[in-house]
Amino acid sequence: MTLESLGGGVDTIWVVLSAAMILLMEGGFALLEAGFVRYKNSVNIIMKVFADITIGTLIFYIFGFGLMYGKDAGGLVGTSGFMLGGDLSNLHFTISVDTFWLFQAAFTIAVISIVSGAVAERINFRAYLLYVIFMTGLIYPLGGHWAWGGGWLSQLGLQDFAGSAVIHALGGFSALAAAIVIGPRKGKFNQAGNSTVALPSNLPLASVGAFLLWFGWFGFNAGSTLSAADARIGHIAITTMLSAAAGGGITLIYTLFRYQRSDAPSVINGSLAGLVGITAGCAFVSDGAAILIGAVSGLLMMAATNWLEARRIDDPVGAFPVHAVSGAWGTVAVGLFATDGGLLYGGGWHQLGVQILGLVTLAAWGFATTWCGLKLIGKLVQVRSSEEEEEIGLDISYHGMIAAHRSAEFIELEDHYLAEDDIGSGNNSRR
Amino acid sequence: MTLESLGGGVDTIWVVLSAAMILLMEGGFALLEAGFVRYKNSVNIIMKVFADITIGTLIFYIFGFGLMYGKDAGGLVGTSGFMLGGDLSNLHFTISVDTFWLFQAAFTIAVISIVSGAVAERINFRAYLLYVIFMTGLIYPLGGHWAWGGGWLSQLGLQDFAGSAVIHALGGFSALAAAIVIGPRKGKFNQAGNSTVALPSNLPLASVGAFLLWFGWFGFNAGSTLSAADARIGHIAITTMLSAAAGGGITLIYTLFRYQRSDAPSVINGSLAGLVGITAGCAFVSDGAAILIGAVSGLLMMAATNWLEARRIDDPVGAFPVHAVSGAWGTVAVGLFATDGGLLYGGGWHQLGVQILGLVTLAAWGFATTWCGLKLIGKLVQVRSSEEEEEIGLDISYHGMIAAHRSAEFIELEDHYLAEDDIGSGNNSRR
Amino acid sequence: MTLESLGGGVDTIWVVLSAAMILLMEGGFALLEAGFVRYKNSVNIIMKVFADITIGTLIFYIFGFGLMYGKDAGGLVGTSGFMLGGDLSNLHFTISVDTFWLFQAAFTIAVISIVSGAVAERINFRAYLLYVIFMTGLIYPLGGHWAWGGGWLSQLGLQDFAGSAVIHALGGFSALAAAIVIGPRKGKFNQAGNSTVALPSNLPLASVGAFLLWFGWFGFNAGSTLSAADARIGHIAITTMLSAAAGGGITLIYTLFRYQRSDAPSVINGSLAGLVGITAGCAFVSDGAAILIGAVSGLLMMAATNWLEARRIDDPVGAFPVHAVSGAWGTVAVGLFATDGGLLYGGGWHQLGVQILGLVTLAAWGFATTWCGLKLIGKLVQVRSSEEEEEIGLDISYHGMIAAHRSAEFIELEDHYLAEDDIGSGNNSRR
Repeated sequence: MTLESLGGGVDTIWVVLSAAMILLMEGGFALLEAGFVRYKNSVNIIMKVFADITIGTLIFYIFGFGLMYGKDAGGLVGTSGFMLGGDLSNLHFTISVDTFWLFQAAFTIAVISIVSGAVAERINFRAYLLYVIFMTGLIYPLGGHWAWGGGWLSQLGLQDFAGSAVIHALGGFSALAAAIVIGPRKGKFNQAGNSTVALPSNLPLASVGAFLLWFGWFGFNAGSTLSAADARIGHIAITTMLSAAAGGGITLIYTLFRYQRSDAPSVINGSLAGLVGITAGCAFVSDGAAILIGAVSGLLMMAATNWLEARRIDDPVGAFPVHAVSGAWGTVAVGLFATDGGLLYGGGWHQLGVQILGLVTLAAWGFATTWCGLKLIGKLVQVRSSEEEEEIGLDISYHGMIAAHRSAEFIELEDHYLAEDDIGSGNNSRR
Repeated sequence: MTLESLGGGVDTIWVVLSAAMILLMEGGFALLEAGFVRYKNSVNIIMKVFADITIGTLIFYIFGFGLMYGKDAGGLVGTSGFMLGGDLSNLHFTISVDTFWLFQAAFTIAVISIVSGAVAERINFRAYLLYVIFMTGLIYPLGGHWAWGGGWLSQLGLQDFAGSAVIHALGGFSALAAAIVIGPRKGKFNQAGNSTVALPSNLPLASVGAFLLWFGWFGFNAGSTLSAADARIGHIAITTMLSAAAGGGITLIYTLFRYQRSDAPSVINGSLAGLVGITAGCAFVSDGAAILIGAVSGLLMMAATNWLEARRIDDPVGAFPVHAVSGAWGTVAVGLFATDGGLLYGGGWHQLGVQILGLVTLAAWGFATTWCGLKLIGKLVQVRSSEEEEEIGLDISYHGMIAAHRSAEFIELEDHYLAEDDIGSGNNSRR
Repeated sequence: MTLESLGGGVDTIWVVLSAAMILLMEGGFALLEAGFVRYKNSVNIIMKVFADITIGTLIFYIFGFGLMYGKDAGGLVGTSGFMLGGDLSNLHFTISVDTFWLFQAAFTIAVISIVSGAVAERINFRAYLLYVIFMTGLIYPLGGHWAWGGGWLSQLGLQDFAGSAVIHALGGFSALAAAIVIGPRKGKFNQAGNSTVALPSNLPLASVGAFLLWFGWFGFNAGSTLSAADARIGHIAITTMLSAAAGGGITLIYTLFRYQRSDAPSVINGSLAGLVGITAGCAFVSDGAAILIGAVSGLLMMAATNWLEARRIDDPVGAFPVHAVSGAWGTVAVGLFATDGGLLYGGGWHQLGVQILGLVTLAAWGFATTWCGLKLIGKLVQVRSSEEEEEIGLDISYHGMIAAHRSAEFIELEDHYLAEDDIGSGNNSRR
């Protein structure tokens, strides 16, 4: 064993553990969404996340990774690494390509799940599957190539340590486009011009999700060093923690004083907004700046929520406020607060300009491709659930079951599901 | 500090973290089961898992580890290491025996919990406790010794990296025996020859479990290197991910097209089947083979589920399809796909033959010892719950409580529970 | 890269991962509490934990860490390190101050959440926020300075590896004071002198919490080495596991034989008691001693539960039995069982004496300051919820929502919440 080989092993376990933590965030995100939406759609939420981690993973393996991290062509696209084959000598890490792929796959799944939140409760399941393929195979890899894979945005000097722009803003603006294209849930906005709310169906379940997300974010941010020897890991961890605490704290105090009641979904989303906001600059800004970034993320999240309501755009779990708006702020904040190059540290306007350019590019890219993509998908299958499907609930409409019940009875199984020469359809749930 | 001592420290934290992740899988398994079975038995599911991690851990510490990893005698059994005492010079790791024990204990708990699923909703609690002792103290350690502890199967060259055969097939075939011995739940199969289903009582809860299992599996497979310096870790992680994605993906697509509805329990179990299937070969097969292995695991899982229904064997959470069948396939797949020695890679029939021999041995061992063990236990206590206990629900029958309720009232505590000279019986739950 | 720099990187990821695991324990603790208390207060439980991890984190960053770990003055208090500024040359770790802070912040949050359990279901939310500031900014940091920060208890040789005294006893006796000051829940004790119980509203949810706690405890105990090169990590992990298994096992068996029914909340709390009990001595005692310590922890936990009932002190989730009593036992046990210095190992009475002194000091400190603190807070705001608030439930009274429901309807949003020039108040929950 040499120092180099031991170092490689250490970096590998660091990245594998971080990737596992990010994958656990997927579960967290599923629970968060399921707890926020109405009960009759919670199985569908979970199924959409399983679609992300199964179909999305395979598509990213076959197409997406190569487009994102393959040998660069013209600053626009990667051209090798499909199914991890071909010439990937452009990648210089202490970890193997396998390990690097796993970490990137975890990020990819995060992006698509952001959009799943915005279309919750009313998207046709097959349409969603097609969109998963589009996002993980094309939209995100191209944007990611520009910013992280050696493409033109990285050549210009865009600083996005763990993805405020590449993941959260791109995902969040894609979510906005999707929410607009698909339209609000029936009953969300009524004729009189008022907005209505669907109360969270299970706040404790959503909290499990929030805790898993907060925990996994240390893998998301600190793991992005891709090397345990990176001296910035401790600092990344503390800025992540402080920003989350600030985002949650400001919403807790604000809603307490403004409405005499600390609002649980706000505090959960405020903490997440803080986590999103620091994702770009966790390695680059000071502790104090992290607290400020988190607090502003929380405030912007609340303002954006109101903005959506006023514009009559239905975003059931706050994908746009939490990811797009906080992600945008986080990206720009690097241009202000980066201790090396930020505007407020004597770095001039250059970094800030690059950050804004990168942000606008990735946000517009996500928005436009999602808009067109859903329109295109709409020519193949129905994108929006039918009125009846939406009314009954997607759990029954698309998955033939309800989420929870206390019946002690057995239900008669429909005979045609059990023909002996037929591969079955799972256990205990056919009706 | 020297390179060796630092390497030892790195390996130690790698294994400790992996062991913690595997222990978290226990919790995941408890939630998966609880969410799949009927509401009136969910506390009992959780109590059986606590029995696994308390009683099972202590029995493995006192007896099991020594039988499994002690100095070999005749290729059949270990003879030292009881309570970690005695001569364990046969173990050559960079980690301490303590650390190795913890990792192995976590595996042991996994085996016993596989069987707990198959007997859910109708096993007498005391009988189950006796079976825990039998499995963690004898059945699994002996099988494990043959395959991993220096016994005759390992001498023959059986390749089971993290336990498709030793844990999943052995556990799964034990589960089959248990399900047959104990008989189906009342109402599961009716006179007319039809099968009925009990719908999952809480699919979101089961999903929490599935996500914890998926996350922990990285510790299960990659941690089995027992050393961070092992260059295979990245590859193990990617094959694990791809196989899980393939298993879940194929069930998602299959049920969508066959039944027009993607079936949530199938997709959950399909992902788990993929994880089980790759557990043997994660270090030995290619990425493409991993995808194939996962997909076949998912298909076999569905077919096996139907087979059980047709044979009128009641396996409430699919322990046999997910663990036994996928584990068997995974073990055999190594003989086909191992890049070094597999049939399809010019290695001839030898490895395949050894894999099949090992699989059949361990499966038969688990089946036979469980069958006999439960018959034996049946002479001491009732094995099957009484009809009344099963009807009322095991939560009330064995644990004096129900899982969840929304009453805001206090309940009068029975006086005799609170005699002042008596050690109490817990908090807030006596009735 | 040098051996030292790689070592520093390894230590950093070890501590960051451990800190993340401890933060996940916070989530676990929230779920445990929410599952144990009555349904109408579960959102409030979760909001109190979010208050811990947001407000508590920031206060500890600004004030607490400096008081706890700053340059010592007179053995009583730290005097530097506020917002991590100033002269912290007294800290000698291989990890950065940032990393060390994160780990300590996670511990701080654990202390305050212990108290949150004892005041559950009847504390005014604003009063609780003030108490969070008091505990994380003053009470815990001072006690922690004496024992860990170079203060007089550490100078006397108190051995508390990961906090049986500093965190669990201090927290648990603070919890006792709080429970007494705030009084029992309405209906808990009635005129006739009987005690009543509120059944757990969601045992499966509480179990998720228990599993997260058990998992995270490996970070809590083993992570306290603050260095991966510490050869004790494997031993710490095994003693932690054995003690937890013994605590849970003895309660499982005891309640089974005493009451013919293994009691789930007892088993959960027994496992936690075992984990608390070993927290002081995990690095210092043998495996066998760990089993004994865990078993005694479980028994003492049950006895203490009965004692509280008899004294008519209402502690809804058993904060005092699990943390104070087991923590006290664990601290004293080091004086008995430490292989280097314990009474039973020929070390004489000295260590035992120091342990008892440290325990009594920290317990009294927590009790007295919490008592006075709540009395003081009571002059600013109401400490106890009003009768009406308690009756309706704190979820509605303080957070304007209920935890879970299955309505498929939208609710009309109150207009005044959506004035366009107003920063909104979150998503989907206003009523």
